[in-house]
Amino acid sequence: MIDNTAMYKLSYGLYMLTTTDGQKQNGCIVNTVSMLTDNPKRVVVFVNNANYSAELLKKTGIFNVSVLDESAPFELFKQFGFVSGRDTDKFAGGRYETSANGLYYLTDHANAYISAKVVDAFEYGTHTLFVAEVTEAEKLQDSKSVTYEYYQQNIKPKPQAPKAEEKPTAEKWVCKVCGYEHEGELPDDFICPWCKHPASDFEKVN
Amino acid sequence: MIDNTAMYKLSYGLYMLTTTDGQKQNGCIVNTVSMLTDNPKRVVVFVNNANYSAELLKKTGIFNVSVLDESAPFELFKQFGFVSGRDTDKFAGGRYETSANGLYYLTDHANAYISAKVVDAFEYGTHTLFVAEVTEAEKLQDSKSVTYEYYQQNIKPKPQAPKAEEKPTAEKWVCKVCGYEHEGELPDDFICPWCKHPASDFEKVN
Repeated sequence: MIDNTAMYKLSYGLYMLTTTDGQKQNGCIVNTVSMLTDNPKRVVVFVNNANYSAELLKKTGIFNVSVLDESAPFELFKQFGFVSGRDTDKFAGGRYETSANGLYYLTDHANAYISAKVVDAFEYGTHTLFVAEVTEAEKLQDSKSVTYEYYQQNIKPKPQAPKAEEKPTAEKWVCKVCGYEHEGELPDDFICPWCKHPASDFEKVN
Repeated sequence: MIDNTAMYKLSYGLYMLTTTDGQKQNGCIVNTVSMLTDNPKRVVVFVNNANYSAELLKKTGIFNVSVLDESAPFELFKQFGFVSGRDTDKFAGGRYETSANGLYYLTDHANAYISAKVVDAFEYGTHTLFVAEVTEAEKLQDSKSVTYEYYQQNIKPKPQAPKAEEKPTAEKWVCKVCGYEHEGELPDDFICPWCKHPASDFEKVN
């Protein structure tokens, strides 16, 4: 028996991943960045292949990871997690600097950044596992790194319960991962338009 | 420039990894267990090759991960993190049950366990990266998973400062990872006897 709620007990951080197509830069939010070896310093990053970042990373092999801290607002996750970089400039209006590899890193709501260069990429269906060598790393401030659990409890907006006088018109489902709300019946093959998680990650709230 | 303190900002959980040599079971503490894909459910685990568990995992390919919670005492980390399973029975005196694959999982100080079967193993010098398919998973309780940061701040004993009337006799170094104390000069090639981290992870406290 595989109980999905057991899987939710694993701990993750949240990170902004910056990549480039050679001209324009792209950013997305990822939850899995881990140090693999200390000497040489290598990190592992998982990227959903539905994200434009996966395609760019396979093409250019360089990226930055900005370690998000607990001050990161929901708008940041919405802008970088749920909007495709294919059509929009996600960096408009934010505060960024450029590291030696020419890529942006976040200076607000981040406490460190790591620049790295992909050495291996392994395909696993929906996701690619990238192993990368660290080329640059800097601590920006002492603030606490945000965990996925903190995001769930303190940053993600709570689903609105219908007011007593309102008559609920249709069933309502909320994505437990990102907070996306879906009204009406939820098909089994539904994919969250924001975070790409499947119907099994939705819960019925109405 | 690679600033080591930037790397410490990545978030990790803490897990007991159970393996077997076919007869006797072995356990060790790891900090990197992440879900890679949801369908099929696959997890990734990094194991230091200095740990007996890495050898067993390459041989038998099956393991359990117990997700430790915030109630886990320092003794548990000491017993499973810092003592080699080659010579001792680490499970003596603890509370465990057995999952369908025949391996132990922890029932105290753990909120979930995951059983998995290795599908790929990639060698990266000091560490092996294992990709594994989940065969069983169960939530045990609702307690909060312990993070590496929580362990550092609340579980690991603080180094004892010398009392005012005592004259410090030698310099003293503490491993920032596990808390091991070393007295006297610290050679550049020093390896922590408990957690196998290098001299660069020690800080001088005296």
